[in-house]
Amino acid sequence: MPIDAATLERALNPKTVVVFGDKKASGYMWLNGMRRFTGRLYSVQVDPNEIANIEEMGVKNFTSLGDVPEPVDYAVCAVPRSVAPRVVADCIKHNVGGVTLFTAGYAETGTEEGKNAQNEILAMAREGGLLLIGPNCMGLHNPSLGVCFFPEQPVYERGNVGFSSQSGSHANSFSIAAPENGLYISKMISFGNGIVLENADYLEYLAHDPQTDAIAMYVESVRDGRRLFRLLRETTPKKPVLIWKGGQTDAGKRATASHTAALAESMAIWEAVAKQTGALLVHSMDEALDTLKALLLLPPFSGTGCGLTGGAGGQSVSITDAFVKGGMTVPALSSESYQRLEEFFSLVGASFRNPIDMGSNRTEMDTILDILAEDPVIDVIVMQMGYLGGQRQQSQLETQIDALVRFKQRTAKPVVAIPNSPTPYRNAEVLTDIVEKLRAGGIASYPTYERAAHALKNAAAYHHFRATVS
Amino acid sequence: MPIDAATLERALNPKTVVVFGDKKASGYMWLNGMRRFTGRLYSVQVDPNEIANIEEMGVKNFTSLGDVPEPVDYAVCAVPRSVAPRVVADCIKHNVGGVTLFTAGYAETGTEEGKNAQNEILAMAREGGLLLIGPNCMGLHNPSLGVCFFPEQPVYERGNVGFSSQSGSHANSFSIAAPENGLYISKMISFGNGIVLENADYLEYLAHDPQTDAIAMYVESVRDGRRLFRLLRETTPKKPVLIWKGGQTDAGKRATASHTAALAESMAIWEAVAKQTGALLVHSMDEALDTLKALLLLPPFSGTGCGLTGGAGGQSVSITDAFVKGGMTVPALSSESYQRLEEFFSLVGASFRNPIDMGSNRTEMDTILDILAEDPVIDVIVMQMGYLGGQRQQSQLETQIDALVRFKQRTAKPVVAIPNSPTPYRNAEVLTDIVEKLRAGGIASYPTYERAAHALKNAAAYHHFRATVS
Repeated sequence: MPIDAATLERALNPKTVVVFGDKKASGYMWLNGMRRFTGRLYSVQVDPNEIANIEEMGVKNFTSLGDVPEPVDYAVCAVPRSVAPRVVADCIKHNVGGVTLFTAGYAETGTEEGKNAQNEILAMAREGGLLLIGPNCMGLHNPSLGVCFFPEQPVYERGNVGFSSQSGSHANSFSIAAPENGLYISKMISFGNGIVLENADYLEYLAHDPQTDAIAMYVESVRDGRRLFRLLRETTPKKPVLIWKGGQTDAGKRATASHTAALAESMAIWEAVAKQTGALLVHSMDEALDTLKALLLLPPFSGTGCGLTGGAGGQSVSITDAFVKGGMTVPALSSESYQRLEEFFSLVGASFRNPIDMGSNRTEMDTILDILAEDPVIDVIVMQMGYLGGQRQQSQLETQIDALVRFKQRTAKPVVAIPNSPTPYRNAEVLTDIVEKLRAGGIASYPTYERAAHALKNAAAYHHFRATVS
Repeated sequence: MPIDAATLERALNPKTVVVFGDKKASGYMWLNGMRRFTGRLYSVQVDPNEIANIEEMGVKNFTSLGDVPEPVDYAVCAVPRSVAPRVVADCIKHNVGGVTLFTAGYAETGTEEGKNAQNEILAMAREGGLLLIGPNCMGLHNPSLGVCFFPEQPVYERGNVGFSSQSGSHANSFSIAAPENGLYISKMISFGNGIVLENADYLEYLAHDPQTDAIAMYVESVRDGRRLFRLLRETTPKKPVLIWKGGQTDAGKRATASHTAALAESMAIWEAVAKQTGALLVHSMDEALDTLKALLLLPPFSGTGCGLTGGAGGQSVSITDAFVKGGMTVPALSSESYQRLEEFFSLVGASFRNPIDMGSNRTEMDTILDILAEDPVIDVIVMQMGYLGGQRQQSQLETQIDALVRFKQRTAKPVVAIPNSPTPYRNAEVLTDIVEKLRAGGIASYPTYERAAHALKNAAAYHHFRATVS
């Protein structure tokens, strides 16, 4: 890549950050986002009204980058397009580590004017050797240092998920949703039009970043397909790479063109790339998060056989259909398991062919889970936890959680739970409580059958691939 | 059917209800469920300990059905299988309108004993002309009369959705989720093994029920396929019928067999039936509710063209992909629309090719919505409402809601909203508030792109079908 990894490393781990042109009209989004930054934060702004507000926020303002009393590792440029070239020139002059050009209105507008403006800053950045991120993007996020681009982004000590994204709103959503899923970000880059560095460059960085154990990419368009292909091939045997492709349909491609000036490739190509490189294609942010959860929070497994339990009649039927349609299998158990079950299992309002509808056999939950875990046809144990409301159901759920947490301590097989409700928002508190108790017990959970099935299928496919290549 | 509609009508609109054998071990589920019943509720129970508790609940208990001082329109039998024949005999003797046999342990166990017990009660019911619902089911639900089978089921004055279900847990979930979706139930029947009446019978009843405008069925297996086919053909030109098939996969069929002794048909058959009768196949409870919402709460539309707006860059790309993959279209607008948009639309951080990413053009939201509505290529207008957190976003959402409610009052085209968040449980309160404000303004909403797309596709297909046959 035209920029070396050390430069990217410097910008992603800044000691000094400068924000150009933050303003009241945007709620001082950038300075608010950076309020938890562990290094030194400065503003560069010339409007006296804005300066007063900024200093009131406790941020030191300068009217010129040259006045900042120390080297600047990372800068955000939130000025209008007409002013951007001056900021870029200044950043080059003062050897700024990296500059995020939040400024939009470039090639993505489809206008000559926009394309020319983009070529102008591209030429400046190339000539000056500047790490220019964007334009039309949110830039860098390093939660461990409080480097943020949105005030609501959570910060925390360490993470191991790297995310590169051609969409700022997806990057933002991802950073907010990740910790709620028990996932934490190492580094995140939102790079919009990506004119200096692009997908392959950020992948290369994350592939070599020792803090990053898994990589997800929201991709609209790739400049150097061969290089991306080679990098994917090199990376996937070491860490999983998820590709979430934007512009999968013709209308979606029209949308990427006006979003990041991206000329999206056909999905057939992406499917072939995934197949040949071991990358995983995902189709939404939820699927990306769900899959990362299965990859990072479960012990490795490469078979698809699921042992399903916890649900009543119709629920058991529906989870079975959803799992099989989602790419997993729900095999009949081995005859030894059936023999063991027959010894105690009452069939009145219950069944044990897999799915196991426990009915009144819930008192034997520990034994049932052990039988599933010890059956060689079962790779993953899945517990449904339906909640319809009421104290009675809540205490039944507590029993299920306790049994599952005990079970998790004595089994080496992956265990997941699916706590759900027909009115999830109304029961959000109960569901969140269940999810947190499960997480405290080391158990990953999913909100729907379909999401669990897709995540497990993706993780099994990755582990299978990795076992094949190593 | 072997039972006439008037008998079913009597049981579904009871003046007197009796519960046999409710007990502490199940939390007096049945009597608690019926606590809002508008008629007279009695218990029949012989255990003195149970009787004391039941009378403490304010329910009059008799030790024999013969002692109940008036005709019984509907009874629930929650006694063990060994006692059930005596209850059935008593109900026949005393001319009870209909009996739900909650009791399980019949053919669904796959045992000879279970099959014989089922044949025994079937013969008794046939000979006695008894409307026996089940066995292995939850029975009847009429929210307008407080006839319920679960304490958490909401009751209300009137509804227009009929639901028949071979699963009690799905019926239960459906009844709880429906009102949260702005849908209300006219009649619901959970009938498990369905040995006297089956799917076709309940469909026939709901097809002729004047209170029922749309029908959903959770089906595991059909006894008389030809009759169901004929009934579907007769019904769909008048009201939509949704079929949610349980046992779509081989493993799912194993699950239906041990759930309701159902021998599920292949999905290819069901797809052919749907195609030839105009019934809609749905694949989950969510899809059933989502589709009913699109059918009952939106004006009819038969085209698939969606005008999408409200989202930022990457969100716009993703909703477009999801809509197209879900069976809708996101067409380029007509040249007249583009001319109108070009007059005022700023392309900096925004785009209007459809999807319309408004960016700083939000001040022109009314005009943008009108342009979409007036464009002949657009059949449905869809507004994304992403929420990531924070006061600033919340007030932006208020602006969107207000604009959409104003728009709804002046357009004849269907309008839907998609309020969502990457952390929906954490933001449940905000999301619920948005959904309620939208509903108060007459606007249906969906929690995800995919769910909205499938619901709209199903509704468009139904209206298209109906226009073709009428």
